[in-house]
Amino acid sequence: MVGYAFMGAAHSQAWRTVNRVYDLPARVRMSSICGRDPGKVADAADRLGWDSWTTDWRALVTSDEIDVVDICTPGDSHAEIALAALAAGKHVICEKPLANTVAEAREMAAAAAAARATGVRSMCGFNYRRVPAVTMMRQLVEAGRLGVIRHVRAAYLQDWIVDPQFPLVWRLQKDKAGSGALGDIGAHIIDLTQYVTGQRIGGVSAITETFVRQRPLPAGSSGLAAQVDGHGPVDGHGSVDGHGPATGPVTVDDAAVFVARLDGGALATYEASRFATGRKNALRVEINGSLGSVVFDLERLNELEFHDATLPAAEQGFTRILVTEPEHPYLSAWWPPGHIIGYEHSFTHEMRDFVEAVATGADPTPSFEEALQVQLVLDAVTRSAERNSSWTEVASTPAPVPA
Amino acid sequence: MVGYAFMGAAHSQAWRTVNRVYDLPARVRMSSICGRDPGKVADAADRLGWDSWTTDWRALVTSDEIDVVDICTPGDSHAEIALAALAAGKHVICEKPLANTVAEAREMAAAAAAARATGVRSMCGFNYRRVPAVTMMRQLVEAGRLGVIRHVRAAYLQDWIVDPQFPLVWRLQKDKAGSGALGDIGAHIIDLTQYVTGQRIGGVSAITETFVRQRPLPAGSSGLAAQVDGHGPVDGHGSVDGHGPATGPVTVDDAAVFVARLDGGALATYEASRFATGRKNALRVEINGSLGSVVFDLERLNELEFHDATLPAAEQGFTRILVTEPEHPYLSAWWPPGHIIGYEHSFTHEMRDFVEAVATGADPTPSFEEALQVQLVLDAVTRSAERNSSWTEVASTPAPVPA
Amino acid sequence: MVGYAFMGAAHSQAWRTVNRVYDLPARVRMSSICGRDPGKVADAADRLGWDSWTTDWRALVTSDEIDVVDICTPGDSHAEIALAALAAGKHVICEKPLANTVAEAREMAAAAAAARATGVRSMCGFNYRRVPAVTMMRQLVEAGRLGVIRHVRAAYLQDWIVDPQFPLVWRLQKDKAGSGALGDIGAHIIDLTQYVTGQRIGGVSAITETFVRQRPLPAGSSGLAAQVDGHGPVDGHGSVDGHGPATGPVTVDDAAVFVARLDGGALATYEASRFATGRKNALRVEINGSLGSVVFDLERLNELEFHDATLPAAEQGFTRILVTEPEHPYLSAWWPPGHIIGYEHSFTHEMRDFVEAVATGADPTPSFEEALQVQLVLDAVTRSAERNSSWTEVASTPAPVPA
Amino acid sequence: MVGYAFMGAAHSQAWRTVNRVYDLPARVRMSSICGRDPGKVADAADRLGWDSWTTDWRALVTSDEIDVVDICTPGDSHAEIALAALAAGKHVICEKPLANTVAEAREMAAAAAAARATGVRSMCGFNYRRVPAVTMMRQLVEAGRLGVIRHVRAAYLQDWIVDPQFPLVWRLQKDKAGSGALGDIGAHIIDLTQYVTGQRIGGVSAITETFVRQRPLPAGSSGLAAQVDGHGPVDGHGSVDGHGPATGPVTVDDAAVFVARLDGGALATYEASRFATGRKNALRVEINGSLGSVVFDLERLNELEFHDATLPAAEQGFTRILVTEPEHPYLSAWWPPGHIIGYEHSFTHEMRDFVEAVATGADPTPSFEEALQVQLVLDAVTRSAERNSSWTEVASTPAPVPA
Repeated sequence: MVGYAFMGAAHSQAWRTVNRVYDLPARVRMSSICGRDPGKVADAADRLGWDSWTTDWRALVTSDEIDVVDICTPGDSHAEIALAALAAGKHVICEKPLANTVAEAREMAAAAAAARATGVRSMCGFNYRRVPAVTMMRQLVEAGRLGVIRHVRAAYLQDWIVDPQFPLVWRLQKDKAGSGALGDIGAHIIDLTQYVTGQRIGGVSAITETFVRQRPLPAGSSGLAAQVDGHGPVDGHGSVDGHGPATGPVTVDDAAVFVARLDGGALATYEASRFATGRKNALRVEINGSLGSVVFDLERLNELEFHDATLPAAEQGFTRILVTEPEHPYLSAWWPPGHIIGYEHSFTHEMRDFVEAVATGADPTPSFEEALQVQLVLDAVTRSAERNSSWTEVASTPAPVPA
Repeated sequence: MVGYAFMGAAHSQAWRTVNRVYDLPARVRMSSICGRDPGKVADAADRLGWDSWTTDWRALVTSDEIDVVDICTPGDSHAEIALAALAAGKHVICEKPLANTVAEAREMAAAAAAARATGVRSMCGFNYRRVPAVTMMRQLVEAGRLGVIRHVRAAYLQDWIVDPQFPLVWRLQKDKAGSGALGDIGAHIIDLTQYVTGQRIGGVSAITETFVRQRPLPAGSSGLAAQVDGHGPVDGHGSVDGHGPATGPVTVDDAAVFVARLDGGALATYEASRFATGRKNALRVEINGSLGSVVFDLERLNELEFHDATLPAAEQGFTRILVTEPEHPYLSAWWPPGHIIGYEHSFTHEMRDFVEAVATGADPTPSFEEALQVQLVLDAVTRSAERNSSWTEVASTPAPVPA
Repeated sequence: MVGYAFMGAAHSQAWRTVNRVYDLPARVRMSSICGRDPGKVADAADRLGWDSWTTDWRALVTSDEIDVVDICTPGDSHAEIALAALAAGKHVICEKPLANTVAEAREMAAAAAAARATGVRSMCGFNYRRVPAVTMMRQLVEAGRLGVIRHVRAAYLQDWIVDPQFPLVWRLQKDKAGSGALGDIGAHIIDLTQYVTGQRIGGVSAITETFVRQRPLPAGSSGLAAQVDGHGPVDGHGSVDGHGPATGPVTVDDAAVFVARLDGGALATYEASRFATGRKNALRVEINGSLGSVVFDLERLNELEFHDATLPAAEQGFTRILVTEPEHPYLSAWWPPGHIIGYEHSFTHEMRDFVEAVATGADPTPSFEEALQVQLVLDAVTRSAERNSSWTEVASTPAPVPA
Repeated sequence: MVGYAFMGAAHSQAWRTVNRVYDLPARVRMSSICGRDPGKVADAADRLGWDSWTTDWRALVTSDEIDVVDICTPGDSHAEIALAALAAGKHVICEKPLANTVAEAREMAAAAAAARATGVRSMCGFNYRRVPAVTMMRQLVEAGRLGVIRHVRAAYLQDWIVDPQFPLVWRLQKDKAGSGALGDIGAHIIDLTQYVTGQRIGGVSAITETFVRQRPLPAGSSGLAAQVDGHGPVDGHGSVDGHGPATGPVTVDDAAVFVARLDGGALATYEASRFATGRKNALRVEINGSLGSVVFDLERLNELEFHDATLPAAEQGFTRILVTEPEHPYLSAWWPPGHIIGYEHSFTHEMRDFVEAVATGADPTPSFEEALQVQLVLDAVTRSAERNSSWTEVASTPAPVPA
């Protein structure tokens, strides 16, 4: 595994747990973890349960000890590592978004397609597909229970940078993160709604905004937590006279909103924001179809609301389904009904499906091609916002993508 | 009062009740009600509590018996009636949307401004401003409790025409209704969010859609309830051989979605739909500011969720305020705390404020100018949707509008 | 009508409205209202819409102008007025609880039975039976949708006397009110759960408590609102030297809790309290049966949660039914779906059924006998609490009571 | 660890995880797991991550390899194993309820007290104390934020045996389980409410019921899942002719309800049931105090509702706190805000505190004495129910128990 911060910890928890909970045709060995700082990566290896560690990702991805490479780094290094790993014949699981640019994503998708021909598997980590309630939404749509999809309204709302004094961490820098709320959390709702509806976003009209354009430089940051550095180096933006912390420009969006048409005829609204005060991790999706509707909120990820419009009128309503029954996706291996699971379980489910796919010679989903298509939507959103919200079609992917 | 259907009944209930609940400087006498069908209007007068009835609205608006004209007809007749009533020196309360076209609305606003100079009052019936929880949202924003507004997300969702066999009532015909979901319910969220935030929508990028383009002709319909006519006259659209009911084209939008910028810097998403299966009257608004957030849902109109981000982090959350305390707007005259009020109470509150304004010589709000500005937003949405979602600025109103 | 305080206002609103909303075989004329204070009752008559007023209830109940007597006074005068009205051949509607003692209630039930033989109708005002969601619960149970009832859990929680400085109003005095939370709000959940389940409470084991035993004397109070009198007369309990307001003993319960068995085999818990901080009018009922469950909360009286355990396991859950459809009880006469009603509508529904019963010669429910049975449950609770929570059977009513 | 079923799996997950998430002064080695069936325990050791396995618990508890014994067996073997382990000088963590009888529990508490003098630690596994929202409730009460506690209403509702064909698993047999819903889930709400309020239950008046008195014998069952055996041995209760599955008597309660007084003056209602259709794992607690209230539901264990009655009246309400902030108990080691945790995390928190206590020479809570006190409440409930709901005082524990 490459990367040991927030995503690295979540993935490690999943790798440690997957064989404890699921009967799988292969057993995972947590071989080696890689990072840039020797001291920190050694600590991480020890704490997170990896047999060894290295600071040389190139050695890692070519090691004979390794079958699978799991990429948890910031988006700017995804392409290089993934391409090398695929070239070395390793199965690859890569965190989302697939890459920081469409060009990189295209290259990765092409490499994955080529590797697939030789039995090498690849997958992009849109873990929320494996939240049981999300999988169940997909099943309901597939079974026709919603009828013709009319509306999608999706929002992924957080508030961790509302404070203008929150520092300029890597996620706020375009060269590291590619984009801001859009790529980080907007990508999730784009993938999730396309996955659930089975429809693609055809075009968008978008606005993006950066509400706070200068922020203090961090003393050193990792993931979502950071501290302001009051004494840090100054590169043209901060104070040099001690009157305040050095600052730097925020180069990504704080929020993105867009309307869209899906290729099956639905209208959609999307919103991704890090400025939605009081919303901590509120990925909310509502889908209305001619026969029913579903509602999901990641802050209550064990629940799904389902409205079945084929019931008698007097008995219709949104049913709060506690998605913890053995009949529900992924749940039979966990606890008794009503005993809820948490955020990290989505990763365990992801690893479960990945391990099974690799062991049985199947292709896991979402493929790199599907992840590329999400990247193309992100790109259309960005271009629309740059061109005064003009309607912008999403470019088509080179080849059909498995549903 | 002109009109006796859904809005007529709701307004009548309010007129009957307002002096029973509130101490006001004037007492209402329900003089005369007007409609086209003599039998129906006579029944309505008797049932709804009006002293007399007429089929001649011109006689009504010039009658010496009348001080106030309340216009509850479909939008295509608002302008003509309102202009005549203002010309006759009557105070006017006109249902929303103010008119079916911007031109009419401009004329009405000008007439209202002229009449105001002679002490004649006018008001547009955006009744949801007087839902206590909505008024309270406005108060919180005014008091600075939300800080700088960052996001508005507003949706008004209904589902009463999901069934393609629902007939072609007047609300689905452009010549009567002006527009569909946009003007009928979209107007409410435009007015409500501008009122609450104190900000205007500066520009929009919009999509509208008519999902079901042909519908059966109704046998006769009023308001939101209708029956399909299987044997009706056919004017080019229906069957002539008895194989099915006659149909006609739906000439208004079923749904409208748009993104917007508010003039105070906030990003906003709006959605109005009659195809949101399971949502009956779901006017939902969430506003996020730098210091707090509020959430409102008309289906639970006695509740307001308020997130105060100035509280200690461990105690923050959305507080479900039951807006039924004597300290809350309009509530001290009603029942003890926790005893909820209903939809029609918003009209009683509207009439309360209107009566008080007229009796004390003040101008009630929203004025016709404010209602014109909503009309200009609706127009911008329509034009954006017609021009492939192009960014469209909202035209400015001729004169400053009182806040 | 006798009484013009909280209940008087609510009943007047219902009498004014009932013929405006419902087609009924008789039309109500609001003839005369009675109270002790001439000035106040004259004001009330004017404000609430009564043709005349009087301070002599005996004259009222024998007046030739009057067909129906509506008793909204405190419980200590119910028996005397109702007996006189029935003796005078007037139809009687009496607020709950029927009386302050079992003896009075027995006498009233006997008088009502005798009067019934001569075509005189009587009814006790348990208005919550006519909240549409409550009526719907009854219908679901009757239709067998819940199967065998296993559990009832009912609570009626308020918090209006949490403050020890809240004054000693008549509702806190045993000679006026009979009991405290138990009779005032506990009576509602006893009646409601027996009505919905079709089962009677067979026996109880109870605790009651008065948390605050001395309170300031009020300057004058009505209904649920009161002010402390700092200078009032002192009768042995208050200060005579001006060091504080005069106080008096609270002679009723602040809260009552009990477990019970229903005669159909269900276990039940009941709680009535005026000390449930944050709960304003939280009448909450959950009923679990072998085939399904229902949940109701008066603070969201337009909603009913229904769990149908006969659906596929993966789709089961509590369905939030918005009880505003024309298919729902009482609703077809009101507003379109999703447009909610309020607390006072339950009285309009009550008057609707009462008027229809009187006009068609049917007996309205709940009868005085049913109300007597509730009184017997209250009595069993009181006796159990007095005897150290001993199991106490509910006495049987003299004659079979119509379901 | 002794036991490898439901609780064994949950505890194993916690032992595997605790050092991965928390920095602790000691690191856990998962040495050996014990069970009766060699094949199954070997499988469990392999799957759950134990170094070795045995079928001889006496060997296990005296092994030199072992410092801590974790008892996850049914209640009938707790006492024997715990006493042996304590005698062998092992630290002991024992699942709840502490024992099946008061006599056993007294013996265990005495042994724990004696062992404590020699530095041997013991703890009973009431894991819900370590759900962060529950810990936070305790902190709010301790800080005086609720004022004087007036009401406790607690229910633990499940529905897994509503179906009369659900088989007679060990949890339905008194000799194995001690009691039914009362000891299994009722014990949790007794402990939790006493822990949160800091008050003890002084006396109770109770009803228990077994709704389904005969059930099919299981083919073999573990934990909460079982299958009916259609061909099993018959011991006097089942069919001998093959016309139906053999059945046996249910010897424990299906449900228990009781009212109680807490020693600080509060009134309380408690309910534990396995017949609450639609409730899967609904441990619900509401506590009302003179200054505020809290509400918790285990099915939404990441949330706490807090009503602060010291806020301005117009802003009061129940605040839904998402208990996922680093400021909240146990949370700083997990995921970013809004990323929820699951049921099993309560065990990880339990092990965290246990490991820290053992490593630092402190006594973990709840002690065996506290668990004995819960047992005494269970005993009072049982005796009250047996004696026609008579008021029954809870026996006092032999010695003061640390708060």
